[in-house]
Amino acid sequence: MIASTPEPPYTAVIFTAVPSEDRSGYLETAMRMLELVADQPGFLAVESSEGPPEITVSYWASDEHARAWKAAAEHLVAQRRGREEWYRDYRVRVARVERDYGPVG
Amino acid sequence: MIASTPEPPYTAVIFTAVPSEDRSGYLETAMRMLELVADQPGFLAVESSEGPPEITVSYWASDEHARAWKAAAEHLVAQRRGREEWYRDYRVRVARVERDYGPVG
Repeated sequence: MIASTPEPPYTAVIFTAVPSEDRSGYLETAMRMLELVADQPGFLAVESSEGPPEITVSYWASDEHARAWKAAAEHLVAQRRGREEWYRDYRVRVARVERDYGPVG
Repeated sequence: MIASTPEPPYTAVIFTAVPSEDRSGYLETAMRMLELVADQPGFLAVESSEGPPEITVSYWASDEHARAWKAAAEHLVAQRRGREEWYRDYRVRVARVERDYGPVG
């Protein structure tokens, strides 16, 4: 699904990851994170593609809102499990969306 | 594969798309575009996940370099076929990457 986002500027967090082979517990946590993130202040939308590589882009009203989500307690626990168990490698890029367009502008 | 990119800032073009059912000719063109883009001035790297949704993120030295690729003749022909044949919907977001990090920073 293509995310519905407001007029730029807003913030995009691009998460690109190479999954590990053993993904025990991943799906449950991913669904819980989707539930939590929806209630985070400044959250706009998320787009995700399984891959590999797995690419997830979340959209935020501001960089500060994205940083607050990164620091959220339950999300910190999930991030640690991601680093230790679910991903062989990943990269997070935080970017400011300056313009956007679709098939009709 | 996770793209290797330089220290920020640089430009990210986030392309999110819902594929059409008939994709005749798509793969050949996509491979040709990958070949062409690699020689474009300012091109840094690309990450792509088939989806759905299909998410492709290309990285550029600057917004001007990304604009020049959008305007490249053979790419314009491919974009038109994308709009008319290969995608039911898509969104392009052009963003400035301000910071990035991986598992070890």
